[in-house]
Amino acid sequence: MPLREALFRTLVEPVSCDVDYPPFDRSVMDGYAVRAADVASAPVQLKLVGRIAAGAMPQKKLSSGQTMQINTGAPLPAGADAVVRLEDTQLSSDATHLMFQQSVPPGHFITRRGTYVSAGQTVLAAGTRLTPLEIAVAATAGAASVTVYRQPRVAVLATGDELIDIDQTPRGAEIRNSNQYLLEALIRGTHAEPLVLGVARDHPETTRTKIAEGLEADVLCITGGVSVGEFDFVPKALAALGACVHIHKMMIKPGRPTLFATMPSGTLVFALPGNPVSAFVGFELFVRPSLAALEGRCGIVPRPVGAKLRGALSASADRRSYWPARVQADPDGDLHAEALAWHGSGDPFGLATANAMIMRPPNSPAATTGERVSVLLLDRV
Amino acid sequence: MPLREALFRTLVEPVSCDVDYPPFDRSVMDGYAVRAADVASAPVQLKLVGRIAAGAMPQKKLSSGQTMQINTGAPLPAGADAVVRLEDTQLSSDATHLMFQQSVPPGHFITRRGTYVSAGQTVLAAGTRLTPLEIAVAATAGAASVTVYRQPRVAVLATGDELIDIDQTPRGAEIRNSNQYLLEALIRGTHAEPLVLGVARDHPETTRTKIAEGLEADVLCITGGVSVGEFDFVPKALAALGACVHIHKMMIKPGRPTLFATMPSGTLVFALPGNPVSAFVGFELFVRPSLAALEGRCGIVPRPVGAKLRGALSASADRRSYWPARVQADPDGDLHAEALAWHGSGDPFGLATANAMIMRPPNSPAATTGERVSVLLLDRV
Repeated sequence: MPLREALFRTLVEPVSCDVDYPPFDRSVMDGYAVRAADVASAPVQLKLVGRIAAGAMPQKKLSSGQTMQINTGAPLPAGADAVVRLEDTQLSSDATHLMFQQSVPPGHFITRRGTYVSAGQTVLAAGTRLTPLEIAVAATAGAASVTVYRQPRVAVLATGDELIDIDQTPRGAEIRNSNQYLLEALIRGTHAEPLVLGVARDHPETTRTKIAEGLEADVLCITGGVSVGEFDFVPKALAALGACVHIHKMMIKPGRPTLFATMPSGTLVFALPGNPVSAFVGFELFVRPSLAALEGRCGIVPRPVGAKLRGALSASADRRSYWPARVQADPDGDLHAEALAWHGSGDPFGLATANAMIMRPPNSPAATTGERVSVLLLDRV
Repeated sequence: MPLREALFRTLVEPVSCDVDYPPFDRSVMDGYAVRAADVASAPVQLKLVGRIAAGAMPQKKLSSGQTMQINTGAPLPAGADAVVRLEDTQLSSDATHLMFQQSVPPGHFITRRGTYVSAGQTVLAAGTRLTPLEIAVAATAGAASVTVYRQPRVAVLATGDELIDIDQTPRGAEIRNSNQYLLEALIRGTHAEPLVLGVARDHPETTRTKIAEGLEADVLCITGGVSVGEFDFVPKALAALGACVHIHKMMIKPGRPTLFATMPSGTLVFALPGNPVSAFVGFELFVRPSLAALEGRCGIVPRPVGAKLRGALSASADRRSYWPARVQADPDGDLHAEALAWHGSGDPFGLATANAMIMRPPNSPAATTGERVSVLLLDRV
């Protein structure tokens, strides 16, 4: 596809530069092109024989005893092998000659043709994601069109009789289906393509039908109904559709009931708990790295960073735990992590200012301000 | 606009929750609803009188001596004030009674109505950016539509006779206009709306006309032509168009010629040097925070983080300097920053794997592996 449209896509094929870069010997400074040998005996006066602007190839060769004015980025004239900065010269009163007070070595303030890369050299490997910096590299290399992975299609399915849409007011036992919005936004944020399936009510048939709709996607994210209770129809529906369940239940908090399966269609299914924080943590830990892998970017797993705790954390239980947190650098550049005030994995409101998760090993003791903790930085630190 | 379309926009007005949340007393666990007073004298046997699933309001009140099965997230029946986990009970052989071995305090495994927020409480302040987490919060709060800032329009103008489009092969003194692609991608990455103006050739009139086109945007980013040389037409063209130049030349490297002006149209103009690395650094340091401020997110300035240097850095000159770098956490969670191999601000290729910039104060001495340096993390660490 055209490079302009390929922002945040991942390269299937490497990009190589079709020309030497820079494509000619060029000046790094506004100044004067000289033969280094001519100014070796500085102070010396040279005759001004022309001016070279960026974009124009010098028509004349520089002979001994001569100099030409040259702009930053402009090509060096044949014969010249160095540039002297404007501020290190004096123009004669009749503007015909330049006085050079100091000698310079050959190559001074010049970037030689091919210094950065040679024609044919790979500048972006296959599997590279085209963020703005790689777009600049590809543009320089002349890759006006690139071969990239298609965006994974990611279906989103919420389950539960209690769910209403967000423009409705909860009555009785109803709650709003915020997970659909959360997951759709997370998927859009990764630049994958969301496919919103709506809500599967707590009924075996309905659940199976809705899940089947999601199997045309590359990945299906289900929230809720994944535990082992009577109304948790997701595992049974997946089984009925031929799922190969690789994982059901994990020693993490939140997220114990998390299920991962592959389907005969090739679809990867992540069934996450229905609590919003659990769904978020599950997306970050499992779905996001999987979407990267589907685009040929393997090994993109969240890597913890050390930070100093601000505030207190209670002792943790027998599962690895993840707490929404806010990380900030102090004026010395040290990272501090504050656990956000929240009321468990059913509370979405504490997520609002989170930019990280504090990750704690099973059976961690209580911790207080100043202790070192591990944090996973989210996209937006 | 509808919440679904408002991803990455910034709130003009705060969002408050229209209902108590959770909207009813609910169970945190799969288990049995009880009166805490009934199990105070555990072991005790209670009569099983019903089952409550999520989504259904209990029809019956729980009387003394009774218990009801309850699912995670389901509403507590009137009369009950605690939940006992499934695994802490035994069902009688005739499935009519439950045996409770331990007492629990009132409120055990219950989330009371309004625990997270009360109706009317602000859950997202004005000036908050709606990333996926805030989308979840707004969805829960019933904010099906939100009032957000419009996306800033950001015009991009490259200058220079040497520039050709990226699908052409450089001949003579030509180079490809990679800056247009870089800036357009950076702007898209911030979710602002780019307006690509093409190339202004090195001519006073052309430059003025092209800049005038950009004044319908909120922000105009110009690359190249901003120095004080004869062919640097940008400062003169801006002056002719009534610019108020606030800054021209900065003690930073790369980026010395950087110019910042405001125009009678209200447009903010950032004229950045034409070298790709200079243009990138200028965007990160000045344009990105300005775009945030235009959306009501003030004080979003790059905050340096400490990291251990990997490799060597030469002494720096009299300007604050920025080097493309790659930051990674080691297994202990310590950040390490490696300066990328590049050949000065004209070389875009070294940017390809950068996820940070090493920031050094003026006149820094040479530094080697293990020394602490300040880094600015880019969006994509």
